[in-house]
Amino acid sequence: MEFCPRVSGKQNRIRNIFLANVDPDLQSSLLDCMRSPRLVGLDSMNYWIHNKRKSLLKILKRVNIFVANDREARDLTGEHNLIKAAKFLRAGGPEMILIKKGEHGVLFYSDKFIFCLPAYPTDKVVDPTGAGDTFAGGFMGYLSTRRKLDEKAIKKAITYGTVAASYNVEAFGMEKTAELSLEDLENRLFKFKKIVLF
Amino acid sequence: MEFCPRVSGKQNRIRNIFLANVDPDLQSSLLDCMRSPRLVGLDSMNYWIHNKRKSLLKILKRVNIFVANDREARDLTGEHNLIKAAKFLRAGGPEMILIKKGEHGVLFYSDKFIFCLPAYPTDKVVDPTGAGDTFAGGFMGYLSTRRKLDEKAIKKAITYGTVAASYNVEAFGMEKTAELSLEDLENRLFKFKKIVLF
Repeated sequence: MEFCPRVSGKQNRIRNIFLANVDPDLQSSLLDCMRSPRLVGLDSMNYWIHNKRKSLLKILKRVNIFVANDREARDLTGEHNLIKAAKFLRAGGPEMILIKKGEHGVLFYSDKFIFCLPAYPTDKVVDPTGAGDTFAGGFMGYLSTRRKLDEKAIKKAITYGTVAASYNVEAFGMEKTAELSLEDLENRLFKFKKIVLF
Repeated sequence: MEFCPRVSGKQNRIRNIFLANVDPDLQSSLLDCMRSPRLVGLDSMNYWIHNKRKSLLKILKRVNIFVANDREARDLTGEHNLIKAAKFLRAGGPEMILIKKGEHGVLFYSDKFIFCLPAYPTDKVVDPTGAGDTFAGGFMGYLSTRRKLDEKAIKKAITYGTVAASYNVEAFGMEKTAELSLEDLENRLFKFKKIVLF
């Protein structure tokens, strides 16, 4: 492994950690550096699912939230039905499974509850690159401000991730996301509620 | 046209009409028989979209609700983005556009509001045949009991269609759907609310 980032003395005390999509062995060595994580999220991709399956399944036992897209969840589990895939993944370690379905929203699965949320409907799709990471950022960012990781907090975190991702797809790369304020998120969340609540 | 159903004296006074998926010319002649429809829904399929496009576009001007699945909406409009497809269809006549996305739920579009609802998540998918028709039945059935077709009524109708369809996919053909009671629908709707509301 050539790329081997170091974790500084301050960073190793970070309590809410998101292991973004890199080699699962690298994710594992990064996690080893952390002193007392409260919440560990992990994202991966098809390349690792096929080429580092064992390492990936091993680190999944150490994470709280596994974030995957629908294709990755199906590839890793061999289950087409996403509820079955989520149950399979849950049995492999993470208490929480978050399956991203792009324009179709997300499916959250845990032993305590299931939550389904559509994507924010937009006809201004310019570039979907990074939408999944933006979602994860909004989701983990919100949870890192919460003391209790209960149903209410998790549902709310998913709505923040969803509106953050909706801004991301409306421009190239980070053009819109980099400028986002909390007010932007709140404004869109307000509109989103009218679109999905009944 | 060999199949030419007749509408009896009683039937032609029915006020809430759903023109299920048959030849659009036949749908049109059936609609001609109706005296004073209040609400007209229409479903179609790719065969008619490709082979009777003109007839289909013509009858769309006479319906209130066009119900299509995502592939049909894309095929008919040439728009991949479903919001754009819905706007295109809206411009062709129907005030309300209801795009069914199978396991991913539905998108409703009108000038007044947009509504997105996931499907009821189930891992007991046995046979999806007829799910779209069951959805339409639950949706139209609920609206036919309402005086006002406002946002609240339409959203509720979509939730009834959704839970009705979820029972349909859990057994072959009409096995489960034929036995459904209103209580069954209400029970699942109660569970569904916990899964989609926040």
